[in-house]
Amino acid sequence: MLKSLEEEFDGILQGRKPDNLYQPISYILMQPGKRLRPQLVHFVVDMFDGDPKQAQLVAMAFEMLHNFTLIHDDIMDMAPLRRGKETVYKKWNSNIAILSGDALAIMALQQLLKLDCDPNIIVKIADIFACTSLEICEGQQYDLDFETRQDVTIDEYINMIRLKTAVMFAGCLKAGGTLVSADEKSLQALYDFGIHLGIAFQLADDVLDVYAETTVFGKTIGGDIKDNKKTYLYLKALENASDAQKMQLQQLFSEPTTDFESKYNTVRALFDQLQVRQETEEQVVRYSQLALQDLENVQVAPEKKENLRTLAMKLINRDK
Amino acid sequence: MLKSLEEEFDGILQGRKPDNLYQPISYILMQPGKRLRPQLVHFVVDMFDGDPKQAQLVAMAFEMLHNFTLIHDDIMDMAPLRRGKETVYKKWNSNIAILSGDALAIMALQQLLKLDCDPNIIVKIADIFACTSLEICEGQQYDLDFETRQDVTIDEYINMIRLKTAVMFAGCLKAGGTLVSADEKSLQALYDFGIHLGIAFQLADDVLDVYAETTVFGKTIGGDIKDNKKTYLYLKALENASDAQKMQLQQLFSEPTTDFESKYNTVRALFDQLQVRQETEEQVVRYSQLALQDLENVQVAPEKKENLRTLAMKLINRDK
Repeated sequence: MLKSLEEEFDGILQGRKPDNLYQPISYILMQPGKRLRPQLVHFVVDMFDGDPKQAQLVAMAFEMLHNFTLIHDDIMDMAPLRRGKETVYKKWNSNIAILSGDALAIMALQQLLKLDCDPNIIVKIADIFACTSLEICEGQQYDLDFETRQDVTIDEYINMIRLKTAVMFAGCLKAGGTLVSADEKSLQALYDFGIHLGIAFQLADDVLDVYAETTVFGKTIGGDIKDNKKTYLYLKALENASDAQKMQLQQLFSEPTTDFESKYNTVRALFDQLQVRQETEEQVVRYSQLALQDLENVQVAPEKKENLRTLAMKLINRDK
Repeated sequence: MLKSLEEEFDGILQGRKPDNLYQPISYILMQPGKRLRPQLVHFVVDMFDGDPKQAQLVAMAFEMLHNFTLIHDDIMDMAPLRRGKETVYKKWNSNIAILSGDALAIMALQQLLKLDCDPNIIVKIADIFACTSLEICEGQQYDLDFETRQDVTIDEYINMIRLKTAVMFAGCLKAGGTLVSADEKSLQALYDFGIHLGIAFQLADDVLDVYAETTVFGKTIGGDIKDNKKTYLYLKALENASDAQKMQLQQLFSEPTTDFESKYNTVRALFDQLQVRQETEEQVVRYSQLALQDLENVQVAPEKKENLRTLAMKLINRDK
């Protein structure tokens, strides 16, 4: 019987000092999140009848890596809330958030180094882990760069969310597949599935940022609008806009937000008029379909793919 | 013929995007530093007649790890200068410094994963790398915690600099020894040598922070005094102080620095009166001697140890 992730995290954090380094790590790891990335790892390993105990270490590593990126991103975005709770930088301070994020990323790597398998496989998984992490940093930097750029294209945006969000999904899946020594064709198919699913997931998230119910969403509604993030909705709105609307949008997204309420309402009204919600949701469907096609190319019996298929369907039809 | 570290770093950074992520990395890696950690790796590998090309990857990894810690520490300490040049956070901004630091740490790991040797050795070296990194985070957190604590003991201080500075030296030496499959006794001796040398190095640095010539030192003189760092000199001064001097010192080190010039002069005068420079320098000698004893236990011919011995002597008699 596998321990829960919370039990595992509690186990590796026991007795560690100093408190200001490890309490923020415990705080963020113990929050009930979607645990999406661990699920991806376990589903792949299960698909190939691999050892769930070994899978758990890989699952922990990627969940920890994910939370490391959240701690650091929240400093950069000055985000006060995450999963309905104060962010680490807000609850402690940004120095502690920098350092506990660093420590968490290192502890993530340490889980992989505990794997009890062929060391060639450990090195391969560590390599996937490192590539994934580096691409996430690149994605986050593009995201920051875009905040002050007025000429971001939709292609650039899709590439940014591929790096910032989708490669982590792809990395979890490929790492799981590598653990069970899956064939090259399946590894590639799993990776592609992760990329397409991740893009669909992020586009759905863009919609939720504007249109979700606050109480369900956990994050601040309209955070992207407040931070002048050029999301898919914004870029699509620019494409569909009249000259006057375009000027208005660009004006709104080029200055620091002073009156958030008013800005949010104006932008949301413009998005409604320009029907960008529907167009974004169409893209969510398109990328999800690509993901499901990728899944066809994984070399296992169709019934083995049920978990990943169900998860994919759930992710793109979520309300938080 | 081995390429220089600068050529190696230039090679791995070629063509990477986005610029705001990789230019700060190039900026800090290309600065002419002491390159102490790479030397430690190469000297050990050379001592056991290992392959310098493989050693170079380990040397790069630890030099990159070191620079990652500098980028993040400089944000936390709000340090404007490093090696006589603007720090990354000052030249760009703290978000870019957080993110490029993260990316640099990951690229450091990637160098280890390129090693062309028994994968068991790669996993062992990655493990040393991870443990070292985590202990450095712990040391940095203690350092931050000590800024606002009035009851730091000398033992706690030595433990902090062991974590923050010495384990990196020890990690370089042990990783080098692991690469060449050195025996356990030698690995332990190399590790201990690194710990003792690292503590001696940091104590010498504490002295330099107060007494070095600005033009030679590269960092801001009196930075520790400005930041209320409880260095060995400060803690020794408290021990030697009269009640009145103790109160004055504690007062000076418990408030944010407003008039730096005056504070620096007062503190330096107190340090002079209480003869803490000499006492700290005696500790530098003591830890250096322990290091040289450790070196005796490395199982190679004495002439093979000349490089490490010379380096150790140079480090503790430096002026920057």
